[in-house]
Amino acid sequence: MSTSIDTLKEKGRRLRIHSLRATTEAGSGHPTSSLSAADLVSVIFFHEMRFDPADPKNPANDRFILSKGHAAPLLYAAWAEAGILKSEQLLTLRRLDSDLEGHPTPRLPWVDVATGSLGQGLSGGLGEALASRLNGITFDTYVLLGDGECAEGSVWEAAEIASYYKTDNLFAIVDVNGLGQSQHTMDRFDVGRFADKFRAFGWYALTVDGHNYVDIVEAFERCKREGGTQPRAIIAKTFKGHGVSFIENKDNWHGKAVPKADLDKALQELSQPLGSNDWKPNLPPKPATLPPAPSGPIRIEVNRKLGESAATREAYGDALVKLATADSRIIALDGDTKNSTFTEKLQKARPNQFLEMFIAEQNMVGVATGLAARGKIPFVATFAAFLTRAFDQIRMAGISRSNVKFCGSHCGVSIGEDGPSQMGLEDIAMFRAMAESVILYPSDAVATERLVALAVEHKGIVYIRTTRPKTPVIYDNNEQFEIGGSKVVRQSDSDRVAIVGAGITLHEALKAADALASEGIRVRVIDAYSVKPMDEATLLAAAAATDGRMVVVEDHYAGGGLGDAVLNVVIGRARVVKLAVREIPRSGPPEALIDKYGIGSKQIIAAVKSLL
Amino acid sequence: MSTSIDTLKEKGRRLRIHSLRATTEAGSGHPTSSLSAADLVSVIFFHEMRFDPADPKNPANDRFILSKGHAAPLLYAAWAEAGILKSEQLLTLRRLDSDLEGHPTPRLPWVDVATGSLGQGLSGGLGEALASRLNGITFDTYVLLGDGECAEGSVWEAAEIASYYKTDNLFAIVDVNGLGQSQHTMDRFDVGRFADKFRAFGWYALTVDGHNYVDIVEAFERCKREGGTQPRAIIAKTFKGHGVSFIENKDNWHGKAVPKADLDKALQELSQPLGSNDWKPNLPPKPATLPPAPSGPIRIEVNRKLGESAATREAYGDALVKLATADSRIIALDGDTKNSTFTEKLQKARPNQFLEMFIAEQNMVGVATGLAARGKIPFVATFAAFLTRAFDQIRMAGISRSNVKFCGSHCGVSIGEDGPSQMGLEDIAMFRAMAESVILYPSDAVATERLVALAVEHKGIVYIRTTRPKTPVIYDNNEQFEIGGSKVVRQSDSDRVAIVGAGITLHEALKAADALASEGIRVRVIDAYSVKPMDEATLLAAAAATDGRMVVVEDHYAGGGLGDAVLNVVIGRARVVKLAVREIPRSGPPEALIDKYGIGSKQIIAAVKSLL
Repeated sequence: MSTSIDTLKEKGRRLRIHSLRATTEAGSGHPTSSLSAADLVSVIFFHEMRFDPADPKNPANDRFILSKGHAAPLLYAAWAEAGILKSEQLLTLRRLDSDLEGHPTPRLPWVDVATGSLGQGLSGGLGEALASRLNGITFDTYVLLGDGECAEGSVWEAAEIASYYKTDNLFAIVDVNGLGQSQHTMDRFDVGRFADKFRAFGWYALTVDGHNYVDIVEAFERCKREGGTQPRAIIAKTFKGHGVSFIENKDNWHGKAVPKADLDKALQELSQPLGSNDWKPNLPPKPATLPPAPSGPIRIEVNRKLGESAATREAYGDALVKLATADSRIIALDGDTKNSTFTEKLQKARPNQFLEMFIAEQNMVGVATGLAARGKIPFVATFAAFLTRAFDQIRMAGISRSNVKFCGSHCGVSIGEDGPSQMGLEDIAMFRAMAESVILYPSDAVATERLVALAVEHKGIVYIRTTRPKTPVIYDNNEQFEIGGSKVVRQSDSDRVAIVGAGITLHEALKAADALASEGIRVRVIDAYSVKPMDEATLLAAAAATDGRMVVVEDHYAGGGLGDAVLNVVIGRARVVKLAVREIPRSGPPEALIDKYGIGSKQIIAAVKSLL
Repeated sequence: MSTSIDTLKEKGRRLRIHSLRATTEAGSGHPTSSLSAADLVSVIFFHEMRFDPADPKNPANDRFILSKGHAAPLLYAAWAEAGILKSEQLLTLRRLDSDLEGHPTPRLPWVDVATGSLGQGLSGGLGEALASRLNGITFDTYVLLGDGECAEGSVWEAAEIASYYKTDNLFAIVDVNGLGQSQHTMDRFDVGRFADKFRAFGWYALTVDGHNYVDIVEAFERCKREGGTQPRAIIAKTFKGHGVSFIENKDNWHGKAVPKADLDKALQELSQPLGSNDWKPNLPPKPATLPPAPSGPIRIEVNRKLGESAATREAYGDALVKLATADSRIIALDGDTKNSTFTEKLQKARPNQFLEMFIAEQNMVGVATGLAARGKIPFVATFAAFLTRAFDQIRMAGISRSNVKFCGSHCGVSIGEDGPSQMGLEDIAMFRAMAESVILYPSDAVATERLVALAVEHKGIVYIRTTRPKTPVIYDNNEQFEIGGSKVVRQSDSDRVAIVGAGITLHEALKAADALASEGIRVRVIDAYSVKPMDEATLLAAAAATDGRMVVVEDHYAGGGLGDAVLNVVIGRARVVKLAVREIPRSGPPEALIDKYGIGSKQIIAAVKSLL
């Protein structure tokens, strides 16, 4: 044992004091949720984990994720006790000029994934545990969960997939304090029931008294001794606010700081040292390095024939294979749709760079965030419609400024007969609503391959939207694309209207342009393949050239998609007819649906004429 | 027993034939997923369920939800065998002019909730089971799940809450065919493991051979005999494509119709009748009626003082109490945030019209959809940020044209110190992206109460966005509001710019207007409380009066929110400066964040001046 029980107790006492002081100073925060887990965190940080306090980026450090992110004061206190922060810094909690935010974010180097939306930490931890194996760097990952958040299904998605992949380097520690925000939890103090659930999901699980240090330390040892290849869960019975009698296990103390007037009374109960405070870090065994990254952008060869039919979703798979071959950091994740998204191409070509995540999209995104935190470049794919399942996880990946790429296939009504539940019609709006995101929407196979390569180069969230039906190749193999770019695919000196499309609607726009040309009406056609950021200069030039006559057409609902992105650029400079899906679609053949819902060449022609 | 085993076998044979024929005729669909569950469905429909085939809306009918929605051909076949559809109609599957869509939607009177996005049916069924109890009408609800979809966490959210509420009138039947879309499932044929999971979540669970009629019938009987107050799960080992040798338990047959050339070969194997086909419906015991609805709009009294401070989130709770007192169909659901959203007011006033749904937002929305299908008017509340967790369920509620109301509290940076994970900054975009939805965003307590009342009157999805900090009351108690309306709250004959705000930013706009007025600059201020639909006439009049100078300001990310809604109305008629949150915010005091992220009175004043 590296740290004595008495020292661990003393650390726990100090963690409590820090948590109380910081929240009282801030006037808000979650001291009681911090106090219930203080003893668990003491053992995890000061007995179990191996990490170098001077080197947060050491790839061999054990990892810790505070899934119950509202206990942030406790986490910051642990860093202070580990010598990573100064104790005075803790008193800047929740200030505008402090990185010690209300819930942890990766603005701080020791935070891998943002938490605070409950039930997401175990997925992030699973991603890190899988990264350990993939990168060949041995470390353990510890995730501290609250009991209330175990009601989130995403916890059980992570649990079952951790078991499937036998991640014996993943620990879930559940702080069962029995109280939620507004009332008792469903299972209250029934730690046995929590353990049964984890066991049913294939975990090695133990229950402990979460305020008994000997119990906690022994549980970790038993996990290592008896856990075999299973992930490990320690279910700890605790009391919210433990250590301070007037807040301990009391209702209506969730998310409330102890008032300044009562702080001394609280600290008085914690005034007696319980052991020595001399802790030495348990350093990782030896320097470890991540697999090397390519020195610059990867150049891929694209070999398509102009005019041939190819689905952009299939080109996505082709591009992944080429890129992942050149960059071992790339890894594809799929939710049992790999034969539709064509990520199976990568699975077949490079099985070690593919992870089947089954039908559990929330966990898939959380795992991707964890993988990205450990240096991987994860590409997450499923039907565009089903990415909505993980919007909260995508939102949190955004707050984490995570380097995760998303691909949504089967967008829009053009998927055809499967019907509205399978049609991605909200996906652009979802990704446009993020503060920092790139949205790429290729119209042909060449563009797809080039855009997937750009996604690898860009650091941050990228969304790639692919189409189910085949579309003709319209770009030369060496055509260059860029994030924030667009292509003018029809143009003349006498363009009377500009049509903006992307994906399948670009081809409808081209058909419309040809038909209009045969009537002597010249139009400009723009492929807005970079939906976010948009190519403002090209759109504004088109607006100027056409006296502000513009049509934008998209296979997406009218709210928040390509059309709205265009409006933001040309507002004040153009009149725009926006064609989009405006009702809940039916099943039917793709072409019939495109026509019925008003986004086909016929409706584009009518829109153009309405502007003349 | 109401139907003999031989007759059930014969029904199963006919269900298989219908499923094969319809999908081959359509040229797509999921025959193998239908065949694995045909025997289960035969027993459920023709032995277990009590329903009147002539009266889909009979409130006492037992309910069936096909959670594995891709087996739609099997469901439609069961209706044909029950005499609800004609056999010929089955051959219109997936046609544009047919309501027999690729996945079931409530366009059909026997479908309560749309399925096809996996893992959602059990929540809908739980909602119906709870409605049975709340309405005092006895019926059972049967949910057929696939094994693959049990990877979705939402299944386990539903499972634990069904157990918590002791819904012994809820059956989950899991069709364990071992094959997903792209490969085997995680647990393959390990039915025991599925049963263990359900048991750990508090269910009475049995395993059966899903092609053995005696087994299946006995399992239902044992459930009723021994299940006690627990919800009941029957885990059935089956084979995908069972009954047709060349597709049975074969890879690469997911979602593929048998080619026309091979159909006869398949049907040949099913050519022998197995029993008689004379089935008599097991009718519900007696006519039942839903609790009465008020005869017209509910009139509520609002008692606020102009200028007093009140949080719109608290007014939401006040309004719920008044409305639910007058209309027993109203029921509030909350995800352990009731002391923040103020739905606890309703819980205290009328405990039978409140359901604590714990920290499991996906299930909460699914349950609401089920409740709405049985005549309730559910109001779902949590922090606006956490509604993103259930975007897929909200999307499916939209496809169901469900009468569910949502309230997202704690929107925007104005929540303050808790930080970005708790800030709803994407919620308007999420609801705007739906085909059919109403978005209401009150700025004061009077407006809130009036808008909640309008939400009750409107049939369909309504989203109400409330604010954490208190804001001054600006409207008279008798002020009238309407869906699609707005309020001009500052106006003169010489308005030079129009400012559009809603919620907290309206108050910033008013501050800006006062400051500008003191400099002699008159501006019009519009409260766009109905974000969707928008009051186009008022906005266009404002654009005309101000020579097209407009500022729109919102406490939401820039993509897809209030600003974009305004752009859609005034495009071609105005130049618009859009103020919105454009980066990931930090923790800090509300006023400081409003200023830092550019949506306060100072920035509004600057935007107005930039247009002059």
